[in-house]
Amino acid sequence: MPDQTSPGTLLSHLRARPPLVHCITNFVAMNIAANVLLAAGASPAMVHAQEEAGEFAAIAGALTINIGTLSSGWLRGMETAAIAAGQSGKPWVLDPVAHYATGFRRAAVDRLLELGPAVIRGNASEIIALAGGASRGQGVDSRDGVEQAEESARLLARVHGATVAVTGVVDFVTNGERAARIEGGSALMPQVTALGCSLTCLVGAFVAVRPDAPFEATVAALATFAVAGETAASKADGPSSFSWRFLDALAGLDASLLDRHARLRCA
Amino acid sequence: MPDQTSPGTLLSHLRARPPLVHCITNFVAMNIAANVLLAAGASPAMVHAQEEAGEFAAIAGALTINIGTLSSGWLRGMETAAIAAGQSGKPWVLDPVAHYATGFRRAAVDRLLELGPAVIRGNASEIIALAGGASRGQGVDSRDGVEQAEESARLLARVHGATVAVTGVVDFVTNGERAARIEGGSALMPQVTALGCSLTCLVGAFVAVRPDAPFEATVAALATFAVAGETAASKADGPSSFSWRFLDALAGLDASLLDRHARLRCA
Amino acid sequence: MPDQTSPGTLLSHLRARPPLVHCITNFVAMNIAANVLLAAGASPAMVHAQEEAGEFAAIAGALTINIGTLSSGWLRGMETAAIAAGQSGKPWVLDPVAHYATGFRRAAVDRLLELGPAVIRGNASEIIALAGGASRGQGVDSRDGVEQAEESARLLARVHGATVAVTGVVDFVTNGERAARIEGGSALMPQVTALGCSLTCLVGAFVAVRPDAPFEATVAALATFAVAGETAASKADGPSSFSWRFLDALAGLDASLLDRHARLRCA
Repeated sequence: MPDQTSPGTLLSHLRARPPLVHCITNFVAMNIAANVLLAAGASPAMVHAQEEAGEFAAIAGALTINIGTLSSGWLRGMETAAIAAGQSGKPWVLDPVAHYATGFRRAAVDRLLELGPAVIRGNASEIIALAGGASRGQGVDSRDGVEQAEESARLLARVHGATVAVTGVVDFVTNGERAARIEGGSALMPQVTALGCSLTCLVGAFVAVRPDAPFEATVAALATFAVAGETAASKADGPSSFSWRFLDALAGLDASLLDRHARLRCA
Repeated sequence: MPDQTSPGTLLSHLRARPPLVHCITNFVAMNIAANVLLAAGASPAMVHAQEEAGEFAAIAGALTINIGTLSSGWLRGMETAAIAAGQSGKPWVLDPVAHYATGFRRAAVDRLLELGPAVIRGNASEIIALAGGASRGQGVDSRDGVEQAEESARLLARVHGATVAVTGVVDFVTNGERAARIEGGSALMPQVTALGCSLTCLVGAFVAVRPDAPFEATVAALATFAVAGETAASKADGPSSFSWRFLDALAGLDASLLDRHARLRCA
Repeated sequence: MPDQTSPGTLLSHLRARPPLVHCITNFVAMNIAANVLLAAGASPAMVHAQEEAGEFAAIAGALTINIGTLSSGWLRGMETAAIAAGQSGKPWVLDPVAHYATGFRRAAVDRLLELGPAVIRGNASEIIALAGGASRGQGVDSRDGVEQAEESARLLARVHGATVAVTGVVDFVTNGERAARIEGGSALMPQVTALGCSLTCLVGAFVAVRPDAPFEATVAALATFAVAGETAASKADGPSSFSWRFLDALAGLDASLLDRHARLRCA
């Protein structure tokens, strides 16, 4: 039976009072991430400039920061926003895209981590490297399995006092104490660019709904993605017909059915 | 019967001599806005850098400026382009996305308004706030109805000598003297990100066709959107299948039928 | 019969060992270009900042540079990346979008050309102007036919020691000595924004597979696009249903059938 923090319950709450989600994400992800948030029922806003990112973070229900197409100017906006989110008690989500690839990226993530994200979402290669492990990552795709990243995720969660999500074939979420695995989705999902980045934004939407329960909010976002992905995959002929069916499925996802279809296990 | 400035007539002219439309729009909107212009029959060009925005504005048939993902560098490009458009007698269209949200955004819109847009297009919350009223807007979505913004639109139109379009369930357009309402579209349209921003670019395309008749050009762009939206909605299963059907419908829209299907009323 | 550098053979190699392709492309193209690379089987990475573009270019298998939405900051990143690619022996591809339109753009392309691209891909107006001819280009669309650009392409290829591809109704590729024409595709392709820019990125993927054979790699990329385009067009109702069918067709393209369906001629 659904409890007060089940995926279906949180999705209902999200739709009843659509949270304003402040997203600083990469150029590849912006359009599809905004469409993912709208389909789920949230209100996205893409605001990155240092001149206003702090002011806006204080208005929004949550902030998400993704370093996909990073530059110095954007990094200043990210830091400004994360600091303002912290000062106004708003949770924020970090997506450390391919942070291992260059020195610029590694230094950026180090600075952002110090600003206290409530949730960190990455693929296995990213999470392993973030915890100081030997990741096989090179570009933006993961070259490691989720199960290889579980200990790294637990370590990161404890060190930073954050919820950490490793997404892949079976997702893994932990806050250092509790952990869960989420099954579902589709093998077509990694073939659609920026779906992972969009999921980070959706985590932001759920965390805005329940800032007091980032672990459950993250699980709910991942379960929502997984169920919508399964629904879409059943009729898709390839990655791009999957993509639009996925957004349709997300928009049409019945919150009360979500709990029945979500495949969650304690880990 | 269609007259010389009916939507169908203007769409025929647009397709007969595709205008080059210089768009400075936000990162979320760029791809779909370009596809909207191509589907309608226009030639889009996204050019924002201060180093060339002025030179390009003088080449193009019209300019559109949207402050969605604003930064200082882009604002300089916008001002340079708007000044050049003014000097070369080209009309330009302003889309003041969520200008009420931050001080940076409010100051930017104040400066752009001084540069004399031919058309201003926004949602009700944006238009109300732009006219100095008490808008309920917070993020990028409107929280006010179009009918609440009508007086603000008339005021803005008179003060700035511009055509003002308020888009929503039923659109409202005025040049301070005349006014029209356009029905149509679909409830799925606000669920697709950046369709409003794309409409701003399409207004630019129609204004390039008839720079001497910005009111009629704006009405034509809105009617085109509304009819294509209705066509697409009849077969859509959700926001994303609506999105691609909308672009297909726009590309297949019969200019001679447009006048029959457009639902315009003087206001 | 397929030889060692036929399109089908190269596509098989690409999928067997997905190359990491470093793309510096415009804001309109980023999402669809990444999806094109993923559908073909390559691994895209969009990295533009001067602070890391050089470091990343040395990691990647190939680099692509597209000046679509140029600015000074991005130009510095492009130059840094092209220099690093040269120093580490990685091939790079230049897409001189509408370089004739402004002085800023012309100067940028002059500097990039000096950095030795392995391949230059453009439409006819771009290639004619790049060779110093009288192009009819104005915005980003070509106003000249491919056949008018063939001599310009041969000249450019010889002067710069590069492979030059002119894409249009029938594509033309030359390295100054040899030349080929590729038929196929669809009249809907120019109605989808940034497909040409995406093709430039795909050329990068093929050149990463065979950096020793840029002419054959370019032909293979163009043939892949042409065959996927024909497949998609057979069921499309307009530009946007073509767009997603095209990505599905690219993902489902049988490498062994590609050689049978590709329509190549020596020129």
